[in-house]
Amino acid sequence: MNIKHITSIGAGNVAFSLITELQKNGYIINQVFSRNINNALELAAKCKSEATDNLNKINRDSDLYIISVKDDAISSVLKELEIKNKLIVHTAGSISIDVFDKHSEYYGVFYPLQTFSKGKLLNFSKIPICIEGANQEITNTLKTVASTLSTRVHEIDSKQRGTLHLAAVFACNFANHFFAIAHDILENNNIDFDIIKPLLKETVTKALRNNPKDVQTGPAVRNDEKTIKNHLDKLNRFPEFQKLYSFVSDSIKDFHK
Amino acid sequence: MNIKHITSIGAGNVAFSLITELQKNGYIINQVFSRNINNALELAAKCKSEATDNLNKINRDSDLYIISVKDDAISSVLKELEIKNKLIVHTAGSISIDVFDKHSEYYGVFYPLQTFSKGKLLNFSKIPICIEGANQEITNTLKTVASTLSTRVHEIDSKQRGTLHLAAVFACNFANHFFAIAHDILENNNIDFDIIKPLLKETVTKALRNNPKDVQTGPAVRNDEKTIKNHLDKLNRFPEFQKLYSFVSDSIKDFHK
Repeated sequence: MNIKHITSIGAGNVAFSLITELQKNGYIINQVFSRNINNALELAAKCKSEATDNLNKINRDSDLYIISVKDDAISSVLKELEIKNKLIVHTAGSISIDVFDKHSEYYGVFYPLQTFSKGKLLNFSKIPICIEGANQEITNTLKTVASTLSTRVHEIDSKQRGTLHLAAVFACNFANHFFAIAHDILENNNIDFDIIKPLLKETVTKALRNNPKDVQTGPAVRNDEKTIKNHLDKLNRFPEFQKLYSFVSDSIKDFHK
Repeated sequence: MNIKHITSIGAGNVAFSLITELQKNGYIINQVFSRNINNALELAAKCKSEATDNLNKINRDSDLYIISVKDDAISSVLKELEIKNKLIVHTAGSISIDVFDKHSEYYGVFYPLQTFSKGKLLNFSKIPICIEGANQEITNTLKTVASTLSTRVHEIDSKQRGTLHLAAVFACNFANHFFAIAHDILENNNIDFDIIKPLLKETVTKALRNNPKDVQTGPAVRNDEKTIKNHLDKLNRFPEFQKLYSFVSDSIKDFHK
């Protein structure tokens, strides 16, 4: 299967990064769909394409249709989409390939494992792209497309992709929540978040060079009950943070038993 | 007060980094004490000093005595230490300056806000150093010493330092625990941790450039109950992680209400 013309169904953060990158690498972006016509127009302008906010206006002229909409909207988009017998993929970490059942014969998943923002286009060459196809021919086709963007292309089935997404929630979404709480605590005490940034950077550098478990530090892992009590007292006016502090500290102790 | 000769009481990760950096910047390291003579010898060799494992052998020839021992050992070290009327500081984030009461007239805190490892000497010039002195003269003396190592010297009192330390536990120790759990989940499923490293790096880059709260992503903040349920099901065999997932997701929802 040779892929040259691509249609983007979606114009959010993932579509914006992925589709402009594909266009930069020689693919022709045939159409961009979004229910929000301004988003569709913005991405279409960026990648020399045309925009539509009507799913029924999506034409059959592409070799590949990439659905990058919110996870829970994929299924309803598929129901409305009239394109049949064309290769369709989605880009969602947490959605199984089974979502395509009955909607198409040719389908797969094209999941770039990264967090994207419209305003900041990333270098794609080291972004892992996880590929799953309905059959080996489709898998190979999608791997070929992915390889034009990145040197890190992986065949990953839906179960593994679900595990990856779960791990990413812990490592990224949850970790970010704790950065946010630290920011909040400092702000409440008129201390600039900047002062802990070098510490934060070095913590992550260490975690990336080791098994993070082996470089765990802090009062919980060394069973320093006096400091833990001291911190819990400091959080008296913030009962939600206090509960969270307790819970995570216990989890660290358990994990290092 | 002019500081030239320094004694290190402690030879752990903090002492190793701080004392070698001071020596590199022209200070003379008079003695290195550690209850573990091998640690004392290792650091003493590194900074052209002499080693002892006997607190009573610490001589009065230094202008500054830096205590870098475990937080809960500072107080007992001070009780045993026979050096009086000399400038003594500790380097601990969570210990108040009050720990010196009755032990010395000249004291302060010299807290480098970073995580140190013996095997990896960091560039000190951007490490924030938090200074607190028993009086303004001592504060100024310590700031002068700190300024020879770093461009980021801050006057921070014990209460603020406690808050900084608390925030650092959230942003660093707790975040690292979630990196460790992600590592564990992937390892249990034979997936290499490497695959989520680009995502992890970009998550931190984003958090450092913004208020982390404003760039929170993931199922909890978008109230995606289907994905949350899916993840909790996946964690059925790991009840501790399951509870933690639930608890942190609820905390994220609360925080973004």
